[in-house]
Amino acid sequence: MYSANIQKLIEQLRILPGVGPKTAQRMAFHVLAHNRRQQARHLACALETAVSTVKNCERCRNYCETTLCSICTSERRDPTLLCVTESPQDVIAIEQTGSFKGQYFVLHGRLSPLDGIGPKDIGLDRLLKRITEAGVVELIIATNSTVEGEATAHYIAQQAKPLNVSCSRIAHGVPMGGELEYLDGNTLSYALQARVQLEQTTLEEKA
Amino acid sequence: MYSANIQKLIEQLRILPGVGPKTAQRMAFHVLAHNRRQQARHLACALETAVSTVKNCERCRNYCETTLCSICTSERRDPTLLCVTESPQDVIAIEQTGSFKGQYFVLHGRLSPLDGIGPKDIGLDRLLKRITEAGVVELIIATNSTVEGEATAHYIAQQAKPLNVSCSRIAHGVPMGGELEYLDGNTLSYALQARVQLEQTTLEEKA
Repeated sequence: MYSANIQKLIEQLRILPGVGPKTAQRMAFHVLAHNRRQQARHLACALETAVSTVKNCERCRNYCETTLCSICTSERRDPTLLCVTESPQDVIAIEQTGSFKGQYFVLHGRLSPLDGIGPKDIGLDRLLKRITEAGVVELIIATNSTVEGEATAHYIAQQAKPLNVSCSRIAHGVPMGGELEYLDGNTLSYALQARVQLEQTTLEEKA
Repeated sequence: MYSANIQKLIEQLRILPGVGPKTAQRMAFHVLAHNRRQQARHLACALETAVSTVKNCERCRNYCETTLCSICTSERRDPTLLCVTESPQDVIAIEQTGSFKGQYFVLHGRLSPLDGIGPKDIGLDRLLKRITEAGVVELIIATNSTVEGEATAHYIAQQAKPLNVSCSRIAHGVPMGGELEYLDGNTLSYALQARVQLEQTTLEEKA
């Protein structure tokens, strides 16, 4: 039906997430239009450049193109506050909030014995070394709130215990702006258990 | 937020249809995972190869990698029956039905005076030349059923009139399996006007 190189392009486009056979065909014909071929070449070049130059920061394992990433080398970031995330995307999500001034450590995965992913694969040895060397005071474990993410968080906390570092986990509960009616039961029952005392200072006490 | 080459990759991925900033970011990080970098290289290579080697068939203007495409050179196809489509994707859609044994001519667009697309841009001179040279008996105009597609169909029919070729347009009406309740009014009123006489042969007459 298609000529060989169009067929090959359609197959290769399917490595992109969320791209099935129909979308891949649409993408292929889109870039083959003569007025878009230059753009397609730029995309091919950007792909090749990115996979060749992007490596992991030697300190935090986040993606960067130099030995150390911009967050690890920044003087404005607090090296004693370390946030552990599963992926570089999580770092970006936290950075976009603008509410964290510490540094990061990226696991590039989570513990998953069934898939053969052990502590070494997520760089735990390097994390523990970093905690000792950089004098980390608090470790914020921001792995996902999935079964594997929670297991990874607990394992890291256990391993970090002898190093005399305070471990915390990002809070779970009702999302801001979320409506209880549409929330899953697990989250809601956790939110009830982990309720927080409201301050009840009167105006006089405040003054 | 991102390193330079990741940023560039995210920007370039947005040339793909239906890819916004969030999807582009997801795609970029997906291909940057270390176990997928080889695949990403293959994709870059397939893109580069496709845009360099895929050209237009000299007879039908469909995409191919040789001078003439496989349909134009096939001896099983009837060269006196010519189907005109707007895009190579339309050819694939018709081929997938398996119900057309003629040849094609791809316009790569439609007449659109507002966008400055005239008869020459959609290769009408070559189409008329082809009709004369190949002795085309019937021209099936399968442009889309949009305002511009209809206008293009009528313009082609007018131009082909002096060449003594029979011009037909693919049928409009209710899609097979479609329910009247959900059909737009235009299509439904056209389907009523263009109603077709049902055969009422009895069993005896058939025998």
